[in-house]
Amino acid sequence: MIKMTNFKMKTVKEGDVTSPLGFQAVGIHCGIKKKRKDLGLILSEGPAVSAAVYTTNAFQAAPLKVTQQSLAKGSTLRALVVNSGNANAFTGEQGMVDALMMRNAVADSFQLSPWEVAVTSTGVIGERLPIEKILAGIEQLPHLLGEDGASFSEAILTTDTFAKSLAVEIEIEGKTVTIGGTAKGSGMIHPNMATMLAFVTTDAKIHPDVLQRLLHHVTDQTFNMITVDGDTSTNDMVLVMANGFAGHTELTEAHPDWPVFVHGFHYVSEQLAKMIAQDGEGATKLIEVVVQGAATEEMAKVIAKKIVGSNLVKTAVFGADGNWGRVVMAIGNSGFYVDEKQLDITIGHTLVVQKGIVMNYEEEAVTQSFKENKVKILVDLNQGEQSATAWGCDLTYDYVKINASYRT
Amino acid sequence: MIKMTNFKMKTVKEGDVTSPLGFQAVGIHCGIKKKRKDLGLILSEGPAVSAAVYTTNAFQAAPLKVTQQSLAKGSTLRALVVNSGNANAFTGEQGMVDALMMRNAVADSFQLSPWEVAVTSTGVIGERLPIEKILAGIEQLPHLLGEDGASFSEAILTTDTFAKSLAVEIEIEGKTVTIGGTAKGSGMIHPNMATMLAFVTTDAKIHPDVLQRLLHHVTDQTFNMITVDGDTSTNDMVLVMANGFAGHTELTEAHPDWPVFVHGFHYVSEQLAKMIAQDGEGATKLIEVVVQGAATEEMAKVIAKKIVGSNLVKTAVFGADGNWGRVVMAIGNSGFYVDEKQLDITIGHTLVVQKGIVMNYEEEAVTQSFKENKVKILVDLNQGEQSATAWGCDLTYDYVKINASYRT
Repeated sequence: MIKMTNFKMKTVKEGDVTSPLGFQAVGIHCGIKKKRKDLGLILSEGPAVSAAVYTTNAFQAAPLKVTQQSLAKGSTLRALVVNSGNANAFTGEQGMVDALMMRNAVADSFQLSPWEVAVTSTGVIGERLPIEKILAGIEQLPHLLGEDGASFSEAILTTDTFAKSLAVEIEIEGKTVTIGGTAKGSGMIHPNMATMLAFVTTDAKIHPDVLQRLLHHVTDQTFNMITVDGDTSTNDMVLVMANGFAGHTELTEAHPDWPVFVHGFHYVSEQLAKMIAQDGEGATKLIEVVVQGAATEEMAKVIAKKIVGSNLVKTAVFGADGNWGRVVMAIGNSGFYVDEKQLDITIGHTLVVQKGIVMNYEEEAVTQSFKENKVKILVDLNQGEQSATAWGCDLTYDYVKINASYRT
Repeated sequence: MIKMTNFKMKTVKEGDVTSPLGFQAVGIHCGIKKKRKDLGLILSEGPAVSAAVYTTNAFQAAPLKVTQQSLAKGSTLRALVVNSGNANAFTGEQGMVDALMMRNAVADSFQLSPWEVAVTSTGVIGERLPIEKILAGIEQLPHLLGEDGASFSEAILTTDTFAKSLAVEIEIEGKTVTIGGTAKGSGMIHPNMATMLAFVTTDAKIHPDVLQRLLHHVTDQTFNMITVDGDTSTNDMVLVMANGFAGHTELTEAHPDWPVFVHGFHYVSEQLAKMIAQDGEGATKLIEVVVQGAATEEMAKVIAKKIVGSNLVKTAVFGADGNWGRVVMAIGNSGFYVDEKQLDITIGHTLVVQKGIVMNYEEEAVTQSFKENKVKILVDLNQGEQSATAWGCDLTYDYVKINASYRT
C-alpha cells in the first residue's frame, strides 16, 4: 500500500467529477423512479483514456456487457450514461437491446461513436428497463449538461442516504492535475467489486494499460475492501476516465511523478469506498478493521473482511455490546491458520487480548468505543509483516426495514 | 441421498435422547445463567460406541479438544456433559484445565474412566467458566438423573426459543431399534458444522468406523446444510452414542437392514437441522431451498447455501417481498458457471423464471408464498442431475435486537 503521507495534495471544495478540466455532467429525473433523479451523464470534451473493473457475479447485467464492448473497441470514452431505479439485470436479450439503445441514443445526442459511450444501470433486478422514458430523458441531456456533478451524483443513488463526491488536486510536472470521483452504495455491498458504482474522472494524461493496472490495484485495496451485507450485485462497476487536459506528458509507472498520481487516485478511491461503507443500508456507524502481522497480504485481507462482514460483529457494534468474542469467532472462520497464542485484539484504544490472553480491561472503555461514529478494531496476528484494512457498517433494524420492503 | 420412503418408521410420542434403551439424561440449573437450566448430562448404562464431528472454526473451544481426547482413547463413551451460558472458548490453558475438571468430575460422580466422558459448552466466547458452580452442579447429577430428556434439551439452549427433541423407532432383524436426538441453535449458525450442538442416542449396535462414516455423510446433508447468519461458532459439535442395547447383530454397510438404520438416522438429523433453522435467532419463517439440475452435488450444495444465506433473500422473505431478483443475484455469487438461459426459478408453486425468461406470473401468488411459515424456493439449473436442499430462516428486527444485546 502506498503511504498517504509526504505528498502535496489539496482537497477541492465541493469537488466532484466535473472538477477536472474538460468534464461536464448532469443528472435529471426521467421517470423510472417516482420523484428522485434517475438518469445521469458524464461527458469529456475530448477522448478520455478509460479503464473499468466489473462485478464478479456470474450474471453480469447487460449494461456492463455493453460497456465492455465499448472499451474493447478502443480504450477511450467520451461519455458515460447511467440510470438508477432499474438494474437491467437478468433481462436476457431484451436487456442487451435496451442497453444498446441507451448507448446509441447518447451517441446520437452528442455526435459520438457508440464505442465512445459507456452504459450502466442500478436498481431492481429482473424487470425490463422503461426504455421509452430513458430515451426521452437522454434527448434532454444536451440542453441541460454543465458542470453539474452534484446532480449527477444524486441521479445514481438508490437507497443511499447521501450523495458521495470529492475531488483532489495534485501536481505533475508542476502542473495542476485534478482527480474527481462519485459513487453510490448501499446494499448488495461486498468485496470483489463491492456492489456499487464508482466513477473517477481526471485531466491527467495516462497510458491506457497503466491506467487499467492502477485501477485493478487500487480497487483491490479500497472498493474491494468494503462490505455492507455480503451480497455481490450483478451491476458493480468502477470506471475511470482520463482526458489528459492537464497538459503534462503521459504518465506511466516510470514517470517521476507517478507516485503522486497513485497517491491521489488511491485517496479518492478510498474516500469513496469509506463513504459507501458508512452509508450502508440502515448503518449508523462506520467500522474500520485493521489486520496486521499477517503472513501474507491475502491473509490480512480475508481476515479483515471476515470480521467486518460478520453479522454478529455488526450487530454487536450496533448495540454497543463490546462482545469481542465475536471478533475471535470471525478470525477463526477465515480458513487460515491463526495461532491463538499470538493474537492481539484492540477495540478503539483498549487492548482486550494480548498474545491470546484476555486483559483486565475496562468494559466501559470498549462499550464507549462501540458508541463512536467510527468504530476501530485492530487485530495483530503477530505472524508476519503484512497488513490490510477493511471497512463496513453496523447491522441495524433499519437494514432489515429497508430490505424487507425494497420494492414497495 | 437416501430416499425417505418405503421404510417402516414410527415417530415416538414426545421422544428424546432417553427414548432408546439404556439411556438416562437430566438438565439442571447450576448458576451460570440467571434462572434457566444450564447444565445437562446424558448417561448410557453400558459402553456406547460413539462418533463426533466438530466445528471448522480455527479456534476450537477447549471442551471440543477434551472430547476429541476422550474419543481418541477408544471409540466408546458412557457420558456426555454439557453446559450452556459460557462457551469456554478462547480461554487458553485455563479453558483446557476447566474442561478437564468437568470431565473428571463427571467420571468421579459416576465411577467412569475420564475417557468415557465427552464434554461440551455453549455460550459467550472469551470468558472463563464459573467452574465452581459447574462442579457443584455435577455433584448433584447422580441424584437427579432419570429418563428426563426434556430437561436435558432445555439445559443446552442459549437464545433458542424452543427445545428440540425427537425419537423414531425402526426395525432391525425384527427387533425394535430407537434413535433419539436433541439439538440447540440458534445464532452463529452456518454450514460446515453449522453452529450448534446436536446429540443423537441409539440402542443400535454398530461398528465404530461405520458410525463415524455415517455421521460424516449424514451431517453433510443435514446439519451442514443449514444457515442462520453465516457465522460458524467455535463450539459446534454433533455427537452420536450407540449402546447396542437393542440386541441385534452389529450393523455395518453390509447388513441387510443397513438402509433402514441410515434412513432413521438421516431422518432424526434432518428434523433436528430443520428445527434449528426454523428457530434461528429472530426467525419467523423456515426457508427451504432446493437446487436441482446441477452438474455436481457440490455445485448444488453451494448454490443452495448461497441463496438461503443471503441477507437480501432473507430480508425479502421476512418482508414478503417477492423480489426473486435477489435469488438470481445469490446464484450468480456461487462461484460456479451457471447458464442464465437454462435457469428455472419457482417460488412456492409459482414458476417465475423459465429458461432464463421472466414469466407472466401472479405477483400476489409469490407474495403469498413468502407469507407462509415455510417458504420454498426451487431452482433448476438444467445443467445436470445433481440436487441439494438447504434450510435457513428470515432476517428480522428481532435478529438484530437479540444480537445487539446478547450479553445483557
